[in-house]
Amino acid sequence: MNFDEIITLDKADPLAKKRLEFDLPANTIYLDGNSLGALPKSVKSRVAEVVSQQWGNDLIKSWNSHNWIDLPIKVGEKIAPLIGAAQGQVICCDSISVNLFKLLCSALKLNSERTVVLSTKDNFPTDLYMVQGLSDLLGPDLCQLQMVEEQDIQKNLTESVAVLLLTQVNFRTGKLLDMAKLTQLAHEKGILVIWDLAHSAGALPVELDTCEADFAVGCGYKYLNGGPGSPAFLYVAKRHQEAVKQPLCGWMGHAKPFAFDANYQPSPNINQFQCGTPSVISMSVLDAALDVWQDVDMLHIRNKSEALADVFINLVKVHHCLHELILCSPDDVKLRGSQLAFSHDAAFAICQALIEKSVIADFRAPNILRFGFTPLYTSFEDIWLAVTTLVSIVESEQYKEQRFNVALKVT
Amino acid sequence: MNFDEIITLDKADPLAKKRLEFDLPANTIYLDGNSLGALPKSVKSRVAEVVSQQWGNDLIKSWNSHNWIDLPIKVGEKIAPLIGAAQGQVICCDSISVNLFKLLCSALKLNSERTVVLSTKDNFPTDLYMVQGLSDLLGPDLCQLQMVEEQDIQKNLTESVAVLLLTQVNFRTGKLLDMAKLTQLAHEKGILVIWDLAHSAGALPVELDTCEADFAVGCGYKYLNGGPGSPAFLYVAKRHQEAVKQPLCGWMGHAKPFAFDANYQPSPNINQFQCGTPSVISMSVLDAALDVWQDVDMLHIRNKSEALADVFINLVKVHHCLHELILCSPDDVKLRGSQLAFSHDAAFAICQALIEKSVIADFRAPNILRFGFTPLYTSFEDIWLAVTTLVSIVESEQYKEQRFNVALKVT
Repeated sequence: MNFDEIITLDKADPLAKKRLEFDLPANTIYLDGNSLGALPKSVKSRVAEVVSQQWGNDLIKSWNSHNWIDLPIKVGEKIAPLIGAAQGQVICCDSISVNLFKLLCSALKLNSERTVVLSTKDNFPTDLYMVQGLSDLLGPDLCQLQMVEEQDIQKNLTESVAVLLLTQVNFRTGKLLDMAKLTQLAHEKGILVIWDLAHSAGALPVELDTCEADFAVGCGYKYLNGGPGSPAFLYVAKRHQEAVKQPLCGWMGHAKPFAFDANYQPSPNINQFQCGTPSVISMSVLDAALDVWQDVDMLHIRNKSEALADVFINLVKVHHCLHELILCSPDDVKLRGSQLAFSHDAAFAICQALIEKSVIADFRAPNILRFGFTPLYTSFEDIWLAVTTLVSIVESEQYKEQRFNVALKVT
Repeated sequence: MNFDEIITLDKADPLAKKRLEFDLPANTIYLDGNSLGALPKSVKSRVAEVVSQQWGNDLIKSWNSHNWIDLPIKVGEKIAPLIGAAQGQVICCDSISVNLFKLLCSALKLNSERTVVLSTKDNFPTDLYMVQGLSDLLGPDLCQLQMVEEQDIQKNLTESVAVLLLTQVNFRTGKLLDMAKLTQLAHEKGILVIWDLAHSAGALPVELDTCEADFAVGCGYKYLNGGPGSPAFLYVAKRHQEAVKQPLCGWMGHAKPFAFDANYQPSPNINQFQCGTPSVISMSVLDAALDVWQDVDMLHIRNKSEALADVFINLVKVHHCLHELILCSPDDVKLRGSQLAFSHDAAFAICQALIEKSVIADFRAPNILRFGFTPLYTSFEDIWLAVTTLVSIVESEQYKEQRFNVALKVT
């Protein structure tokens, strides 16, 4: 594969023009959109308008005149088609962690004869922590976390399990779980399933309704490009909405928040899953960012994501010096999300050397080098340049000469 | 009192120049800063910088290079002196509602022999709802909400009460509770106290440490001018930090969040009270907004707040047509926060007529007209013009001729 072939791939890419809708830094190859998505151009004018006009000029009236009050629903409905959810099931609010707490409590209550929350040892830590916190609060008689290896999920789907909590795409390896199959197997045992879509919403077609998922949470700041610490979202299948009652019942989840009644009455719909006052500025940023998706076909996203990873792997294979990089992601493209992970003893140093040469990848302890592909704005040329830079670093062994400070990185 | 005297008051006001640090809409009298604070001018450049430079250009590196990771602590430390808290006790995160849940669980656990959370019937509803949600989750054997009238708090401080949950300034009437006295009385009975500072932080001097408060929550979007849905804050007295463990233990509260360990270990300090990824854009807005306070003496704030309300009441008194407005706030200025509430059967219609004439007050069901005084940017001339407009509306009985749609309003 040579550079001309790469350019041909970019020319044939139906998503190539979407890159123009983003403000990308000059002379930088950004392969970390799975950690923090890039800035959609439309955000800058929107945030200026929300701050200067809506807040500064119209002040409190904007709750009505600019419809701030409906933002959580409006943004939720924009996310819904990206995750295969029909209307009335998705709302934008709080963080993934807080939303998981709401859904864990809801699911345990629906399945109150059982106590076990089953998850994987390698799930993203906050998901596990939120179960541990709930278990501490309720006691082990009401909630216990059971962690198993990914390959052992199926055999642990027993009738003591109340809730199966899985992240669809593993944050380290990029391994994609089979949502349809696992949801069905869980349901056969009377288990409710919560899917964490942090690394899948916007990265690949997600089919919550088709898979008959029960609950899901997801992230605004990765593939949805909602900016650092963007509000998260949650999904509750319509069939559960009447029966569930979540405990973080702040005033925005009340059936009539402006009646200022002293007794809580949950909203009869997805609004119940709101808690406090919505984060209007951040949520408006996400709202603007989501407009990028209006004319995007998720199958194009998936096809390009697969092709980008395929090119990356092929280029790694042809460079002998890169053979020390061991692919930790599944070989089969169908079993991967939109990222590749390689292990290397010097992964941290290599990652820092790449960043110094403006190829932004990221490192995950203990020894993982992670490259994220965001089909809206990653080009095939980016992949070529990234691997070329990687080759120059590994070949010259530059990374061995340098000392790097341990850097924080937020997934 | 005549207009010349009003102008003299403005000329003598040591805070008058602070108004220049805000972008206020032209030809508008804004008396609703107790619901949504006005826009500090410094916010516009900060938000543009955070979006374009920090996010757009520096992307994921900004967690280190722009120190996003420390924003919750940095913003907490900026709020601390405004609420009488020494360092290491305040953190900015989530919403008031979510933070109340963390603190309610923490306090109940510290006082685990008892089960009652005592509050007032007229507390802001979300505070009551969060207790109701926790009570539903844990069951009445572990948590029960007892609601009493404000004047009956003291006699209900019994040894079955675990937690006293009070809002320092009542959202409707503006009545100011005696934090020092009530905290002391509660402690004498072994009760822990959670103070909600939504209507007091930035409105008057708050002395959490001096009063030996246990816990507090507060709001970023009212007197702190952090913008709509700004992140909230919480306070945990140093003496409790080692013993407490809060259940919403997301990864940002972990002692080593970037070790990605599967088992939760709480941070040994106030960081434990973080949950998910911080809302960087919104929190940066609040961070910029807080700079307004750098050279402000809270005693000047209180003096001006009292004087503004005093002038308002005096002007109301001299106009016979306003005698139908019944003051629901305490007569004694020392017993009030920084707002005045009047009841009137046509409060809603009068409020709408005021807004139509660009005097922004607000209405609280069932019949309360509420005027907030924000000493940083409210002038004595504003008060004069507001009452003059109120007189013209009530005298002409214009409000009776109009029909207004019920408008949502967010406190």
